[in-house]
Amino acid sequence: MPVPLDRLRALLGDDRVLASEADRELYAYDATPLLHQRPAAAVLPADAEQVQAVIELANEEGFGLVPRGAGTGLSGASVPADKDAVVLLFPHWNRLIEVDEENLTAWVEPGLNTLAFATAVEARGLFYPPDPGSMKVCTLGGNVAQNAGGLRGLKYGVTGDYVMGIEGFLPTGEPLRVGGKNVKDVAGYDLKRLLVGSEGTLGVFTRLLLRLIPQPRARRTLLAAYPRAVDAAATVKAIIGEKIIPATLEFVDRVTLNCVEDYAHVGLPRDAESLLLMETDGHPAVVEEEATAMARIAQAHGGQVEVAASEADAERLKTARRMAFTALARLRPTTILEDVTVPRSELPAMVEDVRRIATDYGLLVGTFGHAGDGNLHPTILCDERDPEEMHRVEQALDVLFEAAVARGGTITGEHGVGLAKRPFFERLTASGTLELTRRVRAAVDPNGVLNPGKILAPPVRTESLVV
Amino acid sequence: MPVPLDRLRALLGDDRVLASEADRELYAYDATPLLHQRPAAAVLPADAEQVQAVIELANEEGFGLVPRGAGTGLSGASVPADKDAVVLLFPHWNRLIEVDEENLTAWVEPGLNTLAFATAVEARGLFYPPDPGSMKVCTLGGNVAQNAGGLRGLKYGVTGDYVMGIEGFLPTGEPLRVGGKNVKDVAGYDLKRLLVGSEGTLGVFTRLLLRLIPQPRARRTLLAAYPRAVDAAATVKAIIGEKIIPATLEFVDRVTLNCVEDYAHVGLPRDAESLLLMETDGHPAVVEEEATAMARIAQAHGGQVEVAASEADAERLKTARRMAFTALARLRPTTILEDVTVPRSELPAMVEDVRRIATDYGLLVGTFGHAGDGNLHPTILCDERDPEEMHRVEQALDVLFEAAVARGGTITGEHGVGLAKRPFFERLTASGTLELTRRVRAAVDPNGVLNPGKILAPPVRTESLVV
Repeated sequence: MPVPLDRLRALLGDDRVLASEADRELYAYDATPLLHQRPAAAVLPADAEQVQAVIELANEEGFGLVPRGAGTGLSGASVPADKDAVVLLFPHWNRLIEVDEENLTAWVEPGLNTLAFATAVEARGLFYPPDPGSMKVCTLGGNVAQNAGGLRGLKYGVTGDYVMGIEGFLPTGEPLRVGGKNVKDVAGYDLKRLLVGSEGTLGVFTRLLLRLIPQPRARRTLLAAYPRAVDAAATVKAIIGEKIIPATLEFVDRVTLNCVEDYAHVGLPRDAESLLLMETDGHPAVVEEEATAMARIAQAHGGQVEVAASEADAERLKTARRMAFTALARLRPTTILEDVTVPRSELPAMVEDVRRIATDYGLLVGTFGHAGDGNLHPTILCDERDPEEMHRVEQALDVLFEAAVARGGTITGEHGVGLAKRPFFERLTASGTLELTRRVRAAVDPNGVLNPGKILAPPVRTESLVV
Repeated sequence: MPVPLDRLRALLGDDRVLASEADRELYAYDATPLLHQRPAAAVLPADAEQVQAVIELANEEGFGLVPRGAGTGLSGASVPADKDAVVLLFPHWNRLIEVDEENLTAWVEPGLNTLAFATAVEARGLFYPPDPGSMKVCTLGGNVAQNAGGLRGLKYGVTGDYVMGIEGFLPTGEPLRVGGKNVKDVAGYDLKRLLVGSEGTLGVFTRLLLRLIPQPRARRTLLAAYPRAVDAAATVKAIIGEKIIPATLEFVDRVTLNCVEDYAHVGLPRDAESLLLMETDGHPAVVEEEATAMARIAQAHGGQVEVAASEADAERLKTARRMAFTALARLRPTTILEDVTVPRSELPAMVEDVRRIATDYGLLVGTFGHAGDGNLHPTILCDERDPEEMHRVEQALDVLFEAAVARGGTITGEHGVGLAKRPFFERLTASGTLELTRRVRAAVDPNGVLNPGKILAPPVRTESLVV
């Protein structure tokens, strides 16, 4: 249904409803390539009461609401699925409300920037481990809605592992409060974990309670360069086999490392087939022991190993991984960052699958990713103005996702389904799981108001999505 | 609706349907005091097909199904809510199907005993941390259905943190498969976490994929005895304040320690007001450092500290905590083990609340529990044949749960809602949360077949529950 802008303005005040052409264009995108759809408006609710009022109006009038963080998402979860949608903005909801050092928790508003939060708690000797690649820009609300990952997944888990409570509203407008400061709580279903990663479809968040842990006292960074791609994977396997769980195990392929070298000139070995960035953190004695063991294992697998001598040196070694996306994105007009994920044991085979698929479809693909947790980012470099090439991209993605699922993997390790992966999700998910997803979605949001068209196609609404 | 035993026998074979008086009596109980209700029958499905067939029959005929592990539950989640119910048994589903050392996972059948599993993976240098008090007897299926806790919650989390995948059936009979060996997976809702702790109401589990971690290389156990109860809590606060996260921080009060001493004669200081059992594990250097720090902190707070010199010595120190329930249970005919949980910072106040409530209602209460995660087990010692005393127990529980919730706590940290806490859950849960719970439950199990009457009162069914 069309959005009644007059009623929105009456509810929120004129300056809280952004509906100019420029505003609508601004919120027609997130960081996902190829997706574009202008909403009817974007709104800046002043407080929880205004959030609730907008949700109630949406239910009454039948328009969609799209909650949005910083728009860094890579699956289009914050791109409207059709024009009759209102984007909910929270940039001004950016307070760090409380750090509770006794219970190791923090209450935050959803618009707080992830890096700003991590830095603030670090100053108190505490650690918030989730570190999505966009952490300089993204917000905690977006992280929770997408269950954002990062480089530390294997040892520390992902965003969802650090969410203790959520306050907000149900899609039908009732106030919602789940979880709390209790380390253990089994009173009813784990609704908090149902809301985490629900991509804005099951609730709107107004306050988040996050879990903190003590800051690791030491950290050591190593970089290994290999003559063969498979040796990096073999190193990962051997490290885990020695019962070491590093904080970071990042993989960079030859295409990517050469792009980084062209761009940043950090002295990477251009003839290496792969790089493995390793990091251990924790107690100084453990870090020392693990770093020594990892260097030994990497060398035994043919790696040229460099151990960071200082914090500045560690930063230099991390450049190869940190710059990967930026460096690759310079090569061609369109950069499609994928995130297929497989069980760690399947990683070498999946890296080979990616190479084969790139060759088969004549595409330029750079691959990097989180080798410790099997989360790969094959990055397709293409030009969206070339329909023939884009057709090949589409075919390649199809084959890529099927290959990942065939290896016991998933179509998305940390980006979510959103709009971009909806067809793949619907096609490649077990029917019982899909059925359960549909039942939960329909029951929680009977009027289809919250982020319609995301994860699942809407049951009735006709779409005008531009892809 | 009445259960058609003939149709069940036709489906499963006569010997898989247990319906004698003795059988029905056997499954009328679990470990929860005061609850008793015979089912129409208990069944032993031979395979997944038979599980599905029973679920389909239940939907067709309208009778309830009660999945049951070893019956060690303390909230009555496996006690039928009415007589028209069939108990699903899995004692013969006890295989350890696979240990995958590369991905650090294990596939198990739901009837596998928890301790047997933990021991089997330990032999390979791996660690399954969840250690519910009943682990010698209970099963992994029951643990997952209840999201069982244990002594290691603060450092290692609970059962749900170790569930990577679930196979089974929806309440309407469709095959269900959620999760997998991927460390990261955000394809759709986190349905796995919705099923964990759903107390048999959202699905029947036939295979479980569990997460393992490397076995800690060293462990150190300490016991501190305090002249005042509040000093134990202050020690816990100071330990966390020094950024130490011990594997175990267990609290035992004076009533309990004297019961243990009467029973087991281990030489506990009878005049102490409280004991704190502390354990650190991990790398030997870290363990050494943390044990030294914890001993220093405990002494600074007035504790008499004993550090275990050997594994046997550690076992002796742990006796006070391990024997707590058994020793208390000897005093009076009826033992009601509660598990209110509060944020760690509220623990001293909650311990005081428990004392005050015990005095106010003239009840004998021993308290022990997991001080590190705020999970207390006030244990009411009473006689169910005395209606006047039981009336006081009922009133005291009411006040106890209200006090916990008022302190930001929960009515159950690890036992679940089941039947025993259903009225408290419905009364003390925020209305939006309750509404979300109802919507999810009704949508996933539209015919109300799976464990009816647990967590929430059934919408229509009349009950004949004996309490």
